[in-house]
Amino acid sequence: MLMGKVVGTVVSTRKDEHLGGLRFLVVRELDGELKETGGMVVAVDSVGAGTGEVVLYAQGSAARQTYLSHERPVDAIIMAIVDEFEVGGEKLYVKE
Amino acid sequence: MLMGKVVGTVVSTRKDEHLGGLRFLVVRELDGELKETGGMVVAVDSVGAGTGEVVLYAQGSAARQTYLSHERPVDAIIMAIVDEFEVGGEKLYVKE
Amino acid sequence: MLMGKVVGTVVSTRKDEHLGGLRFLVVRELDGELKETGGMVVAVDSVGAGTGEVVLYAQGSAARQTYLSHERPVDAIIMAIVDEFEVGGEKLYVKE
Amino acid sequence: MLMGKVVGTVVSTRKDEHLGGLRFLVVRELDGELKETGGMVVAVDSVGAGTGEVVLYAQGSAARQTYLSHERPVDAIIMAIVDEFEVGGEKLYVKE
Amino acid sequence: MLMGKVVGTVVSTRKDEHLGGLRFLVVRELDGELKETGGMVVAVDSVGAGTGEVVLYAQGSAARQTYLSHERPVDAIIMAIVDEFEVGGEKLYVKE
Repeated sequence: MLMGKVVGTVVSTRKDEHLGGLRFLVVRELDGELKETGGMVVAVDSVGAGTGEVVLYAQGSAARQTYLSHERPVDAIIMAIVDEFEVGGEKLYVKE
Repeated sequence: MLMGKVVGTVVSTRKDEHLGGLRFLVVRELDGELKETGGMVVAVDSVGAGTGEVVLYAQGSAARQTYLSHERPVDAIIMAIVDEFEVGGEKLYVKE
Repeated sequence: MLMGKVVGTVVSTRKDEHLGGLRFLVVRELDGELKETGGMVVAVDSVGAGTGEVVLYAQGSAARQTYLSHERPVDAIIMAIVDEFEVGGEKLYVKE
Repeated sequence: MLMGKVVGTVVSTRKDEHLGGLRFLVVRELDGELKETGGMVVAVDSVGAGTGEVVLYAQGSAARQTYLSHERPVDAIIMAIVDEFEVGGEKLYVKE
Repeated sequence: MLMGKVVGTVVSTRKDEHLGGLRFLVVRELDGELKETGGMVVAVDSVGAGTGEVVLYAQGSAARQTYLSHERPVDAIIMAIVDEFEVGGEKLYVKE
């Protein structure tokens, strides 16, 4: 999984028929110091993530292993909201 | 998923027998500011996308999760046409 | 899929037992202007591609979705020979 | 697989329902000289790895091939703790 | 598939229970001129490859398509030993 920050949304009305009801969020990838790497992905939201939240997202076939996304043409999913990120005994991020 | 812009087409008559009837579109990857990243992919079209349109495309096994592409040797699919792309409360793209 | 140019072959006699009868071709990746990107892959040929031909190749699990490659340990397949590559209304490549 | 070093943990309470009981570890990728490449991933722990340990991790669908991770939305797993890493006849790493 | 050169081994005693009996080899990626690219991967050996040999390796779910690796958490496999590598009519490598 990678860490990312939710920064926006994508709206689509004309889409594959398997995609009804899914929310597409814009996620910027974060590195080990919580800085943006420049990478961006559009991921399906399975946890009710909101703008500004730090999340974990999975890519590839893993993105279809939720009830929401099963057998749908999606390759990235937000599967967890990060509460704490700790490196070397130091808490670099704590969700408020 | 990644965002991209449809810029062209690929025509092939000699191809794997599972590929009949599929449209192959040339898609340039877009970043979070809708600028081209330099990345390019040839993706199957599942939504009737046209040249110039901003789309979402999925890669890997996700590309086979449409009726059109099921069990076919394709690794990239356009699965949505983008209506709106919003980041930080600002609409960076609205389809005309 | 990515576009590539077939430039050579790999011969192997000592290989996994599932790989008998497959042709391994050396493919150089092409960008949107048909220039080599520097990327290279060894792909199974499912369409009778020859040296110098411009092809489409699929990677990942898609590479096992042909009769030839089904359930075999291969991660890249040439699944189409390109006849025409058109960008912005201009034909950048037409097969002779 | 890639080699990495465990450097921290991620805690999440709000997550996909399939993710209960999994430990998420922060892993920094190592190169062939055991130096950090700058790459980072959050991986599920299947072997009881601790901070500072050198591990092997698998990505993609391979990450779901343990009892722990079967059919769960995860794309990276620590599946081995490295005892010895030998290159060119020289032991570059031996676990203490 | 990518071409690589076997340069070493990884030994692990504490690992996922599905991994018994597998050999983990250190492989350095080679480019089209047989120079090392700087990329490295740890791959399961399915063909009895030895140090110094030039091999083909497959990544992703393809790595589980051998009897040895079926349903195991591995994402890279050496599935062929290269006898000859020919580009543009010239043999750039012939196994001795």
